[in-house]
Amino acid sequence: MSQSTDFSAQNLNDMRNARNRATIDTFALRDYLHDGRDLWEHRHGIVTILSKEPAFNTPGKEFMTRTERFKDGLGKTKRLYELVDEHGWTTMDVTFAVFAMGETLGINLHNIAFEPVLLSQASKELLEKYSDLVINRGIIGCYLQTELGHGTNVSALETTATYIPETREFEIHSPTMTSTKWWIGALGKTATHGVVQAKLILPDGTDVGPHLFFVQLRSLDDHRLLPGIIAGDIGPKAMGGYDLVDNGFARFEHVRIPKWHMLSKFSQVTDDGKYVKPPHAKVSYGGMLYIRSGMVTSAGWSTAKAITIAIRYASVRRQGSKGPDGLEMPVILHPSLHVRLFPILARAYVFIELGRATMRAFMDMSERLASGDASLLAELHATTSGLKVLCSNASVQDLETARRSMGGHGFSAFAGIGRQYADLVPSVTFEGENFVLDQQVVRAALKAFTTLMTCAQTQGRHKVLELSQGLPPSSAYLKRLLPGPDKRPSEPPVLSDASWQDCGVLITLMEWRAALLVHEIAQTTDSPDATIYQRVSKAVTEAFVAGRVGEMISQLEQSEMKARDKEVVRRVYTLYLLTTVESGLTDFLSFGLLRFPPRDSSIKSLSRDPTRGLRLTVAQICQDLLPEAIGLTDAFGFTDWELNSALGVYDGQVYKALWERAQTEPLNRTEVPDGYEESIKPMLLRGQRLARGAKL
Amino acid sequence: MSQSTDFSAQNLNDMRNARNRATIDTFALRDYLHDGRDLWEHRHGIVTILSKEPAFNTPGKEFMTRTERFKDGLGKTKRLYELVDEHGWTTMDVTFAVFAMGETLGINLHNIAFEPVLLSQASKELLEKYSDLVINRGIIGCYLQTELGHGTNVSALETTATYIPETREFEIHSPTMTSTKWWIGALGKTATHGVVQAKLILPDGTDVGPHLFFVQLRSLDDHRLLPGIIAGDIGPKAMGGYDLVDNGFARFEHVRIPKWHMLSKFSQVTDDGKYVKPPHAKVSYGGMLYIRSGMVTSAGWSTAKAITIAIRYASVRRQGSKGPDGLEMPVILHPSLHVRLFPILARAYVFIELGRATMRAFMDMSERLASGDASLLAELHATTSGLKVLCSNASVQDLETARRSMGGHGFSAFAGIGRQYADLVPSVTFEGENFVLDQQVVRAALKAFTTLMTCAQTQGRHKVLELSQGLPPSSAYLKRLLPGPDKRPSEPPVLSDASWQDCGVLITLMEWRAALLVHEIAQTTDSPDATIYQRVSKAVTEAFVAGRVGEMISQLEQSEMKARDKEVVRRVYTLYLLTTVESGLTDFLSFGLLRFPPRDSSIKSLSRDPTRGLRLTVAQICQDLLPEAIGLTDAFGFTDWELNSALGVYDGQVYKALWERAQTEPLNRTEVPDGYEESIKPMLLRGQRLARGAKL
Repeated sequence: MSQSTDFSAQNLNDMRNARNRATIDTFALRDYLHDGRDLWEHRHGIVTILSKEPAFNTPGKEFMTRTERFKDGLGKTKRLYELVDEHGWTTMDVTFAVFAMGETLGINLHNIAFEPVLLSQASKELLEKYSDLVINRGIIGCYLQTELGHGTNVSALETTATYIPETREFEIHSPTMTSTKWWIGALGKTATHGVVQAKLILPDGTDVGPHLFFVQLRSLDDHRLLPGIIAGDIGPKAMGGYDLVDNGFARFEHVRIPKWHMLSKFSQVTDDGKYVKPPHAKVSYGGMLYIRSGMVTSAGWSTAKAITIAIRYASVRRQGSKGPDGLEMPVILHPSLHVRLFPILARAYVFIELGRATMRAFMDMSERLASGDASLLAELHATTSGLKVLCSNASVQDLETARRSMGGHGFSAFAGIGRQYADLVPSVTFEGENFVLDQQVVRAALKAFTTLMTCAQTQGRHKVLELSQGLPPSSAYLKRLLPGPDKRPSEPPVLSDASWQDCGVLITLMEWRAALLVHEIAQTTDSPDATIYQRVSKAVTEAFVAGRVGEMISQLEQSEMKARDKEVVRRVYTLYLLTTVESGLTDFLSFGLLRFPPRDSSIKSLSRDPTRGLRLTVAQICQDLLPEAIGLTDAFGFTDWELNSALGVYDGQVYKALWERAQTEPLNRTEVPDGYEESIKPMLLRGQRLARGAKL
Repeated sequence: MSQSTDFSAQNLNDMRNARNRATIDTFALRDYLHDGRDLWEHRHGIVTILSKEPAFNTPGKEFMTRTERFKDGLGKTKRLYELVDEHGWTTMDVTFAVFAMGETLGINLHNIAFEPVLLSQASKELLEKYSDLVINRGIIGCYLQTELGHGTNVSALETTATYIPETREFEIHSPTMTSTKWWIGALGKTATHGVVQAKLILPDGTDVGPHLFFVQLRSLDDHRLLPGIIAGDIGPKAMGGYDLVDNGFARFEHVRIPKWHMLSKFSQVTDDGKYVKPPHAKVSYGGMLYIRSGMVTSAGWSTAKAITIAIRYASVRRQGSKGPDGLEMPVILHPSLHVRLFPILARAYVFIELGRATMRAFMDMSERLASGDASLLAELHATTSGLKVLCSNASVQDLETARRSMGGHGFSAFAGIGRQYADLVPSVTFEGENFVLDQQVVRAALKAFTTLMTCAQTQGRHKVLELSQGLPPSSAYLKRLLPGPDKRPSEPPVLSDASWQDCGVLITLMEWRAALLVHEIAQTTDSPDATIYQRVSKAVTEAFVAGRVGEMISQLEQSEMKARDKEVVRRVYTLYLLTTVESGLTDFLSFGLLRFPPRDSSIKSLSRDPTRGLRLTVAQICQDLLPEAIGLTDAFGFTDWELNSALGVYDGQVYKALWERAQTEPLNRTEVPDGYEESIKPMLLRGQRLARGAKL
């Protein structure tokens, strides 16, 4: 194409200028986001290796059938583990590599569900025989929980595991069609073994509820299903999501397994069929908490990918009124656009940090749990439930907002965000449906509230103060309901225009909202309206996250970054807090939290909208961040290979990239398409005949 | 499957019971929604014919490549027009048939853009030669507007049409790569002709801006591209949307067309190259307004499809605590679920009616325009811009909410909503990007406001009252800012708990919000915050729609429906109004519109949340509608063939349908999948080898 230079030159120029405008040290920020230079370099090394591998550069994957995509995914998985051998990559490295390649692989279910559950809950005997096979993937596992007729409510699962004392076996059975295991990742065609959740039935017929059992599904000789097992793939997913993953179904027809295949580290059955209870009812929650903790990090990095694409495109796409250069403006200069994008950027920054903190909290909890101390379990359960809802809701919505911000071109598959969205969107319904989790968050909040209030009514002041200061992070906001050290009842802050730039005030406001909403729901438990659970859950979790953002800001101040970099990142965090308040304004207004001193009534021109100061501050911070936008997204460190987006290319040549990708469309292989002779031609001839008739 | 009865029996039973609970007359309601029994029967006849045709029942379309899907789409199109001949279907019937089959076809662009634009703006000469061919599809057309580098801002299009007086020709040319026409439906592989939007350049070099030109693209002999034209398909779309449509690109290299190929009904070029202006600047907007008007109706019926699926599934899916029958509750009984679904149902009802009214308004305007009267154009432009934003935003979000309400199974492609969503989601960015349209709505509102205020300041009371009563529907809300007939300044209503059931109060509140927001933005035009355009646009359009809902309620009262049916539909409309207020509570609170009389302070237990009354009323109406839900969705009259959803089957046998569809997945054709020998087996062997090593 002879004209290929005209548009590329402008694109290149626009991107270069946008990049040059940044005053921040992109490299320093990149190290900050990646938790240090070493980790960044290590990760970048992994990406470099992957990006050169043919297995991870299959041409035309946008045009494959699902069967071809599945097979391609197997090829990627196989090559990934060869690379693990060659380079000594850790489990964390593998998780990173899979995210970097931008595909959801079935083996993920082995890594995040099958393996941790088996290793943490199996008996010594089972571990002795299988742990090395599991760790090295000499067997490939899946985790069979949900059933055709049963999801979140685990207690209603129908699959049974009946103990047969005579042979010291369990019989795994699917008594009804609705008990068919369904949606199980990697079960359809890949897994050789699985951990099956089934109701444990004792010899006397007692049902002691769902327990876990290790079951071989397929032969290790020829991969055929073992007798008594019917299994297959459940079919394609909405919007083409998860197309590499063989989510599957399975039915068990009286399948026998040896007794030691029960995951019996915590609860057991004696040889003669007596049930031995676990030491703590929630001791098996570890696996779920691990997955939910990890979802914060992946929400953060997924959002980072999408916002990098959207901000890069917005920096070179020109549309609207003409600027001083005689060209249309880069669209990022339109306030209606950047005010949509920068809050997403801010959420990516916050969720990445928050993910790291959440994973550390999980590790602490696990360590204690391993030594029999379950004291951190309830706290982590409460916070990760809320975080799962918050981060999955936000990241799914943010990906779609980023995609739409790119207008028409955002709807091209080559824009890259659509595919990412299709893989991310089930996160709002899996691993605990978000509306169900909201109710768990509310339950935990009400429990903390009741405990505190009971104590406040029955205990002395000193004790209440001690209690108020000792609240765990998940319910720290409740201190707002108690008198302070000066014994006076605390009061919400009185705001000024400057308050909206003050992170301390924003955090305090969010604590107040959470406290007042919990107080409200506690008063109305007998007649709740239908949306209060969502409002309370959101308020409680946002207050928790606001507290963590406060900590991030403190840590930032103490870090060795340059003053300018700190200032920019602080602004990013402020934008996060501000837009979080903005998204909940109804509640802030309902509970009278936007308290301003009385205005000077003589100033007639004053706006009567109490939310205007906040909104103007959002607009102002976005304006301030404008020159830093490309730098802030470059700091995520994505390569073009990772983003796999025509609109997110590093050098800005978006039109060239779109053009080149369009040429790969299989429909373009022939000038006259398949279907012309059969359909187009007869249609045209028919119409021409009719037109001639009309003329007669 | 021997167990196939167990789950089906329960499903059948649940659906039968749910259907029996309805007290409304589903048939009467169905006739109401379809604008009369005759139209319903006619439409149902079309569906019956289509559903028996092999072309519209291609097996395994979920598993086709895009190339196969495109070809399949051509086959459907061809057969559709054969049926048109056989049954004498009208254009409206074709539109209905395409919607009924649930696919977006490329020929749609011929029908809604190419044909109306050509017929309404071509010269007599062009019509004489081509109108019969166009009407009968003896040629297939597309509408070439957007370019690789240019979208909404039509004035920046780069394609040129230079008039050559010597030969009385235009030369169509793509001067840059960014001027490549892009995204054009049916251009990629199908269209033989197109209407090209290009800058008209006069012989003296004057650029008089974008005009329309009729250009042949492909030979009618062999379908090959004509000389000087490079065209092809732009590749797949996000989430698999529009996969039957060959959205295409085209470049023109100095392509000559005769002068009379310019669409010159309104503006012309004389033989010697003088420009003749159109009589009214916006006279060519008709096509755009037609498309936008149609989008209201299609938003309504798309929403209707999705909510039928979601409500049927929710009526048979059981989960959560056990009811008196010892089984888990049907999930529709959970308030957190039905309070999400019923407002969607209400929007479907409102949008279907609203779409009919909008199309009538378009017809009125067109008739007047044809006789040279452009007086209704500005009003229709203002209302359809706002409606396009409102209805596309709402329907896209409602489809996704409906899909998510089905939990895990909603993510199956077999649930059917994912595909619908992928086809509907571009409606928020095409035909005027929604954020850009918001600004047009605001501009029109500010103009109406300024005119009214100027008049109020300069004219006498009588004139102002006259003006206030004569406001067009799009700005009727502004009357709130003027004194009433009693000369007193009007005041927002004081609310009571009963207000939330009072449609009149709800409509008044929405008018007040719109009026106060427009007043606010008029005061702050010099420093707008970044989101006020969206708030104002939403408020203004919602006030307009609220007025229309008021009319719907009046018409309902006058209709011949039974009292009970009227009562239920009135409740549906009330729910629409209530949840619209709920979604804008921030603004209602900000502008002090939730005004209650002072509470009795002695009642300590009173809630302090001013929004609680509204929220409880929403919950209550949803509760009231619970028994009617299946009846209200049955009234849409969809067949299983139209819904094409395993979860939305009429008889409720959702698990059977999911099971049967899963068996059609091509991956299930072999027990051991393709890729086992190449990938799975070597992975397992590697892992087993490593595990043995670990044991040494």
